[in-house]
Amino acid sequence: MNDAAEQLIDPAQAYMAAVDLGSNSFHMVIARVVDGDIQLLHREKQKVQLAEGLNEQLVLSEEAIERGLSVLAQFADTLTPFAPQSVRVIATYTLRRARNAATFLRRAKTVFPFPIEVISGQEEARFIYQGVAHFEHFSGRRLVMDIGGGSTEFAIGEGLHPLRLSSRNMGCVSYALQHFPQGRISEKRFSRAILQAEQELEPIVSSFKAAGWQQAVGTSGTVKTIRDIIVGLGLSTNALELSQLLALKDHLVAQENSYQLDLPGLTDDRKLLLCSGLAILTAAFNLLQIEQMIYIDAALREGVLYEMSDRLQHLDIREHSVASLQRRYDVDMAQAERVSHTALTLFSQVRHSWQLADEDAMLLGWAATLFEVGLHINSSGVQKHSAYILHNANLPGFNQEQQQLIATLVRFHRRKIRADEIPAFSLYQLPQVIHLLVLLRLAVLLNQKRRDNLLPDLLATAGHQYLQLQLPADWLAQQSLLAADLQLEQKALKKIAFVLDCPGLSDAIPA
Amino acid sequence: MNDAAEQLIDPAQAYMAAVDLGSNSFHMVIARVVDGDIQLLHREKQKVQLAEGLNEQLVLSEEAIERGLSVLAQFADTLTPFAPQSVRVIATYTLRRARNAATFLRRAKTVFPFPIEVISGQEEARFIYQGVAHFEHFSGRRLVMDIGGGSTEFAIGEGLHPLRLSSRNMGCVSYALQHFPQGRISEKRFSRAILQAEQELEPIVSSFKAAGWQQAVGTSGTVKTIRDIIVGLGLSTNALELSQLLALKDHLVAQENSYQLDLPGLTDDRKLLLCSGLAILTAAFNLLQIEQMIYIDAALREGVLYEMSDRLQHLDIREHSVASLQRRYDVDMAQAERVSHTALTLFSQVRHSWQLADEDAMLLGWAATLFEVGLHINSSGVQKHSAYILHNANLPGFNQEQQQLIATLVRFHRRKIRADEIPAFSLYQLPQVIHLLVLLRLAVLLNQKRRDNLLPDLLATAGHQYLQLQLPADWLAQQSLLAADLQLEQKALKKIAFVLDCPGLSDAIPA
Repeated sequence: MNDAAEQLIDPAQAYMAAVDLGSNSFHMVIARVVDGDIQLLHREKQKVQLAEGLNEQLVLSEEAIERGLSVLAQFADTLTPFAPQSVRVIATYTLRRARNAATFLRRAKTVFPFPIEVISGQEEARFIYQGVAHFEHFSGRRLVMDIGGGSTEFAIGEGLHPLRLSSRNMGCVSYALQHFPQGRISEKRFSRAILQAEQELEPIVSSFKAAGWQQAVGTSGTVKTIRDIIVGLGLSTNALELSQLLALKDHLVAQENSYQLDLPGLTDDRKLLLCSGLAILTAAFNLLQIEQMIYIDAALREGVLYEMSDRLQHLDIREHSVASLQRRYDVDMAQAERVSHTALTLFSQVRHSWQLADEDAMLLGWAATLFEVGLHINSSGVQKHSAYILHNANLPGFNQEQQQLIATLVRFHRRKIRADEIPAFSLYQLPQVIHLLVLLRLAVLLNQKRRDNLLPDLLATAGHQYLQLQLPADWLAQQSLLAADLQLEQKALKKIAFVLDCPGLSDAIPA
Repeated sequence: MNDAAEQLIDPAQAYMAAVDLGSNSFHMVIARVVDGDIQLLHREKQKVQLAEGLNEQLVLSEEAIERGLSVLAQFADTLTPFAPQSVRVIATYTLRRARNAATFLRRAKTVFPFPIEVISGQEEARFIYQGVAHFEHFSGRRLVMDIGGGSTEFAIGEGLHPLRLSSRNMGCVSYALQHFPQGRISEKRFSRAILQAEQELEPIVSSFKAAGWQQAVGTSGTVKTIRDIIVGLGLSTNALELSQLLALKDHLVAQENSYQLDLPGLTDDRKLLLCSGLAILTAAFNLLQIEQMIYIDAALREGVLYEMSDRLQHLDIREHSVASLQRRYDVDMAQAERVSHTALTLFSQVRHSWQLADEDAMLLGWAATLFEVGLHINSSGVQKHSAYILHNANLPGFNQEQQQLIATLVRFHRRKIRADEIPAFSLYQLPQVIHLLVLLRLAVLLNQKRRDNLLPDLLATAGHQYLQLQLPADWLAQQSLLAADLQLEQKALKKIAFVLDCPGLSDAIPA
């Protein structure tokens, strides 16, 4: 454990840490909650350049993986005294795109004991917006732009509420490799890089301009470096303007090679990323017609911290996301509540046998209230349509695996379970997924009549690949159709080697 | 041409024919429009038992294919004097499910010159409802049930407006093979068949009962046969009731084998289908709590005829379906109108070179107003989400291939065109699909700024795998981003061996 961290860990206080596995650097911030506010205590940054190791086939190189793991091991040391629920670790662009991300995540488990959550681009933009919005209040609409190593995030919001979120497939590492290889600089290279960035930005321009803003904010290393250089050269005292970006570009073109750059505020590790970052920033100024941009020293990891502090106070943004989806897809809430009530009743009876956690109950409950969103597309094949929507929707507050887990549970909430289509999760074990799936399927099956007060008291006990569901014999005898469906369910579960035992079931079915 | 048909063909009058390739029989009806009303002139029925040739792997046997083709050849003879637009040919369950349906459709072209449209189950239910609703007016809500060879359709509606539509995967041919093989009959066989039919019905019961109805109607051969027998046995004089169905079941169980049946109104070709049809009908009476059901002698093919007569009067239900989808998915209509205007402007300039028809213009126009429905799910990957919705939505009035064509155009309206993912259509040639796709892509690209009055006059000329788009040089010079996008589009189209020629394009792009 390093000294800085050692001094600040006092188990009696509410400490939290957020780690951000970015495409250029890995960052860690440690904070404590004081009277509901967050006090930043410690920041650590390690250059990893993960994106540099991502080839055109989206495979992450062994070297890049090792650089990442080595930094994770250092962070693990600092985080030793932290309880698991006090640490959130977020991975962005490179681990979102890499085909072999699962390899990285599996190997990371051996050196780093905290779960790594890969998030979507929109979620990344949301965290960045939250970081800025909590860090410094502004009373109008605000545009936030964060140029990362592999992607660039844009957000517009008011106060703490984001209104537009987008992640574009362009970053200072990937554009440096593509447009300014070996540090080469020219006017033509700049034109091509800016044009490509403009093409990448184009699809969001009309929607962002329609929303509008009164303040434009840049965050993270690229904007900070450009701001520092422009101030250092005496071109400006504070806010960035297009004319200064163009002047800096002219200055750079005159240098011919990035390695030779000697500019105020430009560190060695930023030299090769300056031109590409400037090109992306210039494209944004051009297309969004940004007049001035200020730099704010807060970003993704601060947004993650603020959300952790909210969850400590039981304000879980995921509740809002689920409710918003229910409204948008006009979900039959009475049925959603019946199914989630049954699912959570069964959950409470088997959670100890199956070693399930509170978080599992939340995910099951959400799946049980969202499984019919696909009715909006078509009732035929609803399990596929619901899963498609949940797989692809923008669900603020969920990391990618949480979202995929819910989509997977919903995909197989009825009919055949295709075990080979259950994704390999990094955060969840297969038995855990199967257990939640069994509970959801039973809850849906038992409530298919969509009527309140129909079900008797349920009694469930569980074991390894086994669940016994006891239903009163006299009740079951009157429910021959439900009994036949339970028998079909026994067959469906048997195919994934799971035993559903319902005493007295065969007596309730016509021979 | 047979005599009956010969007598009625008078080219001076508006004759129409509808052909229904059902799972049990093929039917043809010929009618004429008199003062906007339809006058049925001629009906023909041929037993084909297509569903009997569908095995568990959903492969249609060679024997069944030949039986079908032979009847089609007979129908083709009758239809010789008909103009293509006066004939609609609809295929249902078996050709919807068969994996080798494309083989049947390809071979059908050699003996039958009219396009065969495969429709979805919901579309089948809708046509049946329309057939009944137009045939006999009823002033309250009406439930319509049609037991077919492979599927059973249910609908509830008021007047001409269906409110609930469903197609269930059970039919008198498939259930006969499964539950009453070789004509065997027993109480146990009936119980199992009824229970399975009830399980199949269960998912729609609460929604159908919630809608409610004042009159229950059965259509087609199964219900007609059961009604005739029950009347013939003196059990009833008109409407069917559950007690009569149970009495008939008891009577049948006492017979032990269907081949021995000798009942009033039971023809030989219906003997093996009586028990299975009765089981499905009984399940519906049980679960939907139907008190009485009357028989009406109109069904799918009559519904098709009525819709043809509507289209003759330019009332195309597809317009309503498209408008309803636009509302449901909150489409930006200003943009939809810009894109469809541009697409249809280009269409009008190249339609002769590419030999495109009015129907192609309609499909292109609809694709151009629906390509953004997927924004409702997520803006990232919108082309996939829009295509998913269009592929799976219930789109009344569209046959399956029309719907798939629109979904395919939308799937590739931007980004990479994956030629191997373009389905093999029976109604459309690949070049025709590519031509419509090129027009849609250009229309989307040219309107990406979402502004009115931005585009100059467009001039397009076309040839084999070739389109030249002329844009004024001075206008293009001011649109370097659009020029760069057109250059990307040239590359994307080149990958499917299509040449997009834009004179002066390279001058408008920074070197």
